[in-house]
Amino acid sequence: MSKSLPKRSENYSEWYNELVKRADLAENSAVRGCMVIKPYGFSIWEKMQRALDDMFKETGHTNAYFPLFIPKSYLSKEASHVEGFAKECAVVTHYRLKNDPNGKGVIVDPEAKLEEELIVRPTSETVIWSTYKNWIQSYRDLPLLINQWANVVRWEMRTRLFLRTAEFLWQEGHTAHSTAAEAIAETKQMLEVYTTFAQEWMALPVLRGVKTANERFAGAVDTYCIEALMQDGKALQAGTSHFLGQNFAEAFDVKFQSKEGKLEHVWGTSWGVSTRLMGALIMAHSDDNGLVLPPKLAPIQVVIVPIYKSEEQLQAIADKVKPITTELKKRGISVKFDDNDAFKPGYKFAEYELKGVPVRLAIGARDLENNTVEVARRDTKTKETVVLDGIVDHISDLLDDIQLSIYNKALAFKEENTTSVDSYEEFKRVLDEKGGFVLAHWDGTSETEEQIKEETKATIRCIPLDQKQEDGVCFYSGKPSKGRVVFARAY
Amino acid sequence: MSKSLPKRSENYSEWYNELVKRADLAENSAVRGCMVIKPYGFSIWEKMQRALDDMFKETGHTNAYFPLFIPKSYLSKEASHVEGFAKECAVVTHYRLKNDPNGKGVIVDPEAKLEEELIVRPTSETVIWSTYKNWIQSYRDLPLLINQWANVVRWEMRTRLFLRTAEFLWQEGHTAHSTAAEAIAETKQMLEVYTTFAQEWMALPVLRGVKTANERFAGAVDTYCIEALMQDGKALQAGTSHFLGQNFAEAFDVKFQSKEGKLEHVWGTSWGVSTRLMGALIMAHSDDNGLVLPPKLAPIQVVIVPIYKSEEQLQAIADKVKPITTELKKRGISVKFDDNDAFKPGYKFAEYELKGVPVRLAIGARDLENNTVEVARRDTKTKETVVLDGIVDHISDLLDDIQLSIYNKALAFKEENTTSVDSYEEFKRVLDEKGGFVLAHWDGTSETEEQIKEETKATIRCIPLDQKQEDGVCFYSGKPSKGRVVFARAY
Ligand SMILES: [Zn+2]
Ligand SMILES: [Zn+2]
Repeated sequence: MSKSLPKRSENYSEWYNELVKRADLAENSAVRGCMVIKPYGFSIWEKMQRALDDMFKETGHTNAYFPLFIPKSYLSKEASHVEGFAKECAVVTHYRLKNDPNGKGVIVDPEAKLEEELIVRPTSETVIWSTYKNWIQSYRDLPLLINQWANVVRWEMRTRLFLRTAEFLWQEGHTAHSTAAEAIAETKQMLEVYTTFAQEWMALPVLRGVKTANERFAGAVDTYCIEALMQDGKALQAGTSHFLGQNFAEAFDVKFQSKEGKLEHVWGTSWGVSTRLMGALIMAHSDDNGLVLPPKLAPIQVVIVPIYKSEEQLQAIADKVKPITTELKKRGISVKFDDNDAFKPGYKFAEYELKGVPVRLAIGARDLENNTVEVARRDTKTKETVVLDGIVDHISDLLDDIQLSIYNKALAFKEENTTSVDSYEEFKRVLDEKGGFVLAHWDGTSETEEQIKEETKATIRCIPLDQKQEDGVCFYSGKPSKGRVVFARAY
Repeated sequence: MSKSLPKRSENYSEWYNELVKRADLAENSAVRGCMVIKPYGFSIWEKMQRALDDMFKETGHTNAYFPLFIPKSYLSKEASHVEGFAKECAVVTHYRLKNDPNGKGVIVDPEAKLEEELIVRPTSETVIWSTYKNWIQSYRDLPLLINQWANVVRWEMRTRLFLRTAEFLWQEGHTAHSTAAEAIAETKQMLEVYTTFAQEWMALPVLRGVKTANERFAGAVDTYCIEALMQDGKALQAGTSHFLGQNFAEAFDVKFQSKEGKLEHVWGTSWGVSTRLMGALIMAHSDDNGLVLPPKLAPIQVVIVPIYKSEEQLQAIADKVKPITTELKKRGISVKFDDNDAFKPGYKFAEYELKGVPVRLAIGARDLENNTVEVARRDTKTKETVVLDGIVDHISDLLDDIQLSIYNKALAFKEENTTSVDSYEEFKRVLDEKGGFVLAHWDGTSETEEQIKEETKATIRCIPLDQKQEDGVCFYSGKPSKGRVVFARAY
């Protein structure tokens, strides 16, 4: 709290790193690329988990748990899957330590070598489909709608807190269906769930679309995604939902007897969001003073700071505040009365601003006389003096208002930063000067996509689901195109 | 469902294994010693988690997340800790796979060897205390009251579903305090939380006590535990709470400035329960027909099975049942109306018996005429015909009654199977013929304890917290003793 945060306009990246640490969200651990999620950060993640889990259950899914370890041979069974993950696998090779005969602590016991190495799961399709083989015999066993909350490991070389870490927390849904149509409907349904969660809980407007072949999940037929825009104009993939076709069913020989008595391969989907969402949440809304949290995900929604000169004043304020906190809690609003005497009000104000508490009430001697309270909202940093009668209704409405207003601000930002371009010159100029989502015609080839990426670092974020059919020419190759896709530089 | 379960009296161990599989609780995976927790089993674990998590939060704890991996050197810092865990560690040595140059899938890339091996956490004291070092400077930073829900790995050679698996799920609390007294109070408080959870949620009476030095957690000063009794007369350790003294603070150099300005080492605790509780729950209450679940942990508390001969009858029953299910749900009671036409009522009855659904309602044409329903309770297998007026109150009371009655049955069993003995002959006879908890005088030495274990396979489960001061002589050595300790053969 002694130093102020770096400014977004001066060094967005440093601003983010410092904010994550100072707001007690997460920090790097002693293990390269692995983070510690601190209590305050974790309580936001818990709120995300609860909301998502409820939505998964409402759509008919149940949770289960599959092993952390995957036999190396399993990973190899789906060709493009192993291709996608082999380069970043943590590998367990031994199962015992022993005392160093030279007396230097412990060493790996060479006699305890595993016959087959185990991979720490980077994702669980292989171990889950090997299990589904035993669970599925008939169309009556389908659909199988399962989700897992778990930790996964991908050995990333360059890591950043929440955005890209070697270990991260996520949920991974894995479903099995008797028809392609049903599996595709599931894939799309879960994209809708993610969209609703991003918009209604995270106050984060997203683009929905389909990935190009280059950006597809390793092992999927189609990858659907939601893409959000950060304040520095870079895109962030916030969730993916994959239609797996029969790829994993074929790799693990998962067949079912259809109603007509035929033996067919099962159709699959998988879908996930991770602690990366924490990064998106922080980067989308926060400002140079600290976090800005949408009320629905804020661990503390309302903080009350007493301003007093004597014990008697503090007591009088506490008495006044008590029925208000009781009533707020009754309505499910989390509230903290901060009567810690070790810190001055000004220090507390800055601290709660840093932590993104949506509503701050300050109440002093004058307020007691006038039966008022000062109400400050974190998002707009506006203050007003409000009479205490009806204050609970006022706060309740204010929280709804803040939730909506953070969303609308992010929506306006996204719209302002979505640009249609028709030439390569314009494309590069917009990327460099403005950033954001760039809508442009593309010829549909991986070659062009890769050239553009190499020359500009921009990738195709998605082919939007609501793409307008429109004849045009690719800005890079001049070849014909039937609609615009979304380019951006991305996290 | 085709075969009946093995009988407990004939093969308790087989009965358990088969029950876990047939009731869809868990199964072995392709990875040695790692289990798959199936949706039905996982939904019981979720209920346990929710109840425990609420209790942890009520006692002032917050959740956080620490890395899966522990640098090998960290594990070595506390001498007895590494001694306790070195022999069962999964070790990550490499971070990449590559294509086999001989074309046989993928191999571990020898060039991607880690400089320092990483251990998959068997427990997190070391990685957490290395983090606490940066979080604690002053007495103002204390106490630090943190819990983590996580997976851990201990490479057990002989595994059994839920009871002993290489990977298991658990929570581990890790707290830091400024005084020994406060840390000891925390240790005991969490033992109380576990006791309350076991008794009120799991309907499982437990003994509370302290472990002997032999059975203490590796790195603890004192290990407190709760011990439960299974139906075969064997004990099961259901939870532990450790007073760590300053051991980990010294190993990781964690000091704080006291109010008086002195620099002192911090005092610690850790405490945990795991998916082993699932094993305890199953083994304590279930019978030869399947699971018996205490209503508070049952995923489905009430099932309603219609008995009908025509579509019209089914419709009439559905209409009758509708307001009842609505009202039950309003009261937070989970209810399933099973109108699946593919199975006969008798099949469904057996299935829900196997799954341990506490209350089953059956309603047929005769019931419609009489405005009645047949109510069957799973625990006692008794049935009664009840008029539909007031049925919701009746069910609600019945669930409370079942919860209590399962507990009382287990309590009576525990009391019947707790025996005081005064000679070695008697000790061995009771162990062999009756099992259970055996209260006996012991001379307090590890030598005697180990001899007894070697000769009888019985261990000291704990020195009970409510131990009566009573002069006596050790049944094995004849040396003096001041009170009885609890022996048992154990899981
Ligand atoms: Zn096949
Ligand atoms: Zn020290």
